[in-house]
Amino acid sequence: MNYNQLVGNIRRKRSFLCVGLDTDIRKIPAHMADKEDAIFLFNKAIIDATAPYCVAYKPNLAFYESLGVEGWIALEKTLRYLKTDFPDQFVIADAKRGDIGNTSAMYARSFFEHLDVDAITVAPYMGEDSVTPFLGYDGKWVILLALTSNKGSHDFQLIEDRDGRRLFENVILKAGKWATADQLMFVVGATQGKLFEDIRAVAPDSFLLVPGVGAQGGSLEEVAKYGMNKDCGLLVNSSRGIIYASQGKDFAEAAAAEALKLRDQMSGLLSTYAGI
Amino acid sequence: MNYNQLVGNIRRKRSFLCVGLDTDIRKIPAHMADKEDAIFLFNKAIIDATAPYCVAYKPNLAFYESLGVEGWIALEKTLRYLKTDFPDQFVIADAKRGDIGNTSAMYARSFFEHLDVDAITVAPYMGEDSVTPFLGYDGKWVILLALTSNKGSHDFQLIEDRDGRRLFENVILKAGKWATADQLMFVVGATQGKLFEDIRAVAPDSFLLVPGVGAQGGSLEEVAKYGMNKDCGLLVNSSRGIIYASQGKDFAEAAAAEALKLRDQMSGLLSTYAGI
Repeated sequence: MNYNQLVGNIRRKRSFLCVGLDTDIRKIPAHMADKEDAIFLFNKAIIDATAPYCVAYKPNLAFYESLGVEGWIALEKTLRYLKTDFPDQFVIADAKRGDIGNTSAMYARSFFEHLDVDAITVAPYMGEDSVTPFLGYDGKWVILLALTSNKGSHDFQLIEDRDGRRLFENVILKAGKWATADQLMFVVGATQGKLFEDIRAVAPDSFLLVPGVGAQGGSLEEVAKYGMNKDCGLLVNSSRGIIYASQGKDFAEAAAAEALKLRDQMSGLLSTYAGI
Repeated sequence: MNYNQLVGNIRRKRSFLCVGLDTDIRKIPAHMADKEDAIFLFNKAIIDATAPYCVAYKPNLAFYESLGVEGWIALEKTLRYLKTDFPDQFVIADAKRGDIGNTSAMYARSFFEHLDVDAITVAPYMGEDSVTPFLGYDGKWVILLALTSNKGSHDFQLIEDRDGRRLFENVILKAGKWATADQLMFVVGATQGKLFEDIRAVAPDSFLLVPGVGAQGGSLEEVAKYGMNKDCGLLVNSSRGIIYASQGKDFAEAAAAEALKLRDQMSGLLSTYAGI
């Protein structure tokens, strides 16, 4: 999916919501957990219920890997279902990969050819040749960690260099030489509040993938206020707040209601802060 | 495996070699590639041939993930084979994971409970709460990226803070507060030469996992000269130089010969630089 298609979807659906498929076998409703294929069936129900209100889905690889072969099968089935039945959804593999060149190239093949997702999250620590192998695919995106949502984000990401530039700024500035805003997004946690202004100072045009609203405590209003640009430029993720909205048989309806609530809030924020 | 057991194995075998199982289906000998289970059979032959000369194996997850479900099955079979038939080998999942706390906890379960490896490589960018979930397992290790072997390592890892401390030094110093040398190693590329002295200044007692000899051009002699401590403190990895030493039917014998050559060199270096 390219930049214009993504912006088009956001305008049409009046939503910049990404639903995080952090599906944990121990948390899915009891009436489903015993079924063969429980993870996929749960994901399918969530997708069917929430698709009208979101523009992206983000399976977190850890949750599938923790189940070994069975988890990998559930992931592949989920991605195939999205690709076939919901081609308008932007699909992000939240994998936080990044390795030496020949290894990153293997990961790129795995995610962009075999799994055929639209984007993958990548960790920047190893530098240019760990990131560029992911950039050789038309219509496929790198989403580079910049300023994450967790407490530990302050350990290294805020370290200032001799010129007073913080590590997350160095990451954004340097990565801006490797790719344009048509292929490169950044992860910025919703918990970072006013720091979104500093992000926009170095990445005015880039899309930002924003985890951390809901369970992690970030404010959607603040994210939009400090982080939105004229094309929206935000994909805000919610995982647990949506997919575990109910533990009962009504889990899908409850997920839809949460997603709709966020969509309605987002619709207002798009008017207020992007004039769209 | 604990610190003393690892050092004991190194002394007994006079080797600090780690064999990297970066098994690429497109590179394994033609006579095997068609077989069902080709990846596992190749790994098994490499392990059987090289085990006398090494103390560790390091499958690189990217190479298995690139094959999807089939690759995951080959990885699980390889790990089970190592665990059962070679319990003295230190097994490292080269995965370079690292995510917010609850996600890192999922990865830790996946690698330490389900796959039951001894160690996992972890990326430090997200800070303390992305690393500590891996530290809650007795006898299991975190191997944190510090100064990697690739060209891009210079992009961020060498950035100096206001006190002149480089990022890789900040990573080592901070991580030293999260765990001791009994549970925490660092990745330092063999291509970094004299910088091993600077690593030892901040991590005198830690084991270092050292990729980058062979195909990537690092010098084993330099690594030992600048990086070895009194307990050796090094695990030097070679992947392509060993497992693809021959493309013919003699691939396992050729791999054994390469591993033996490195072991002999290592035996001399242990005498020279560690007096053991």
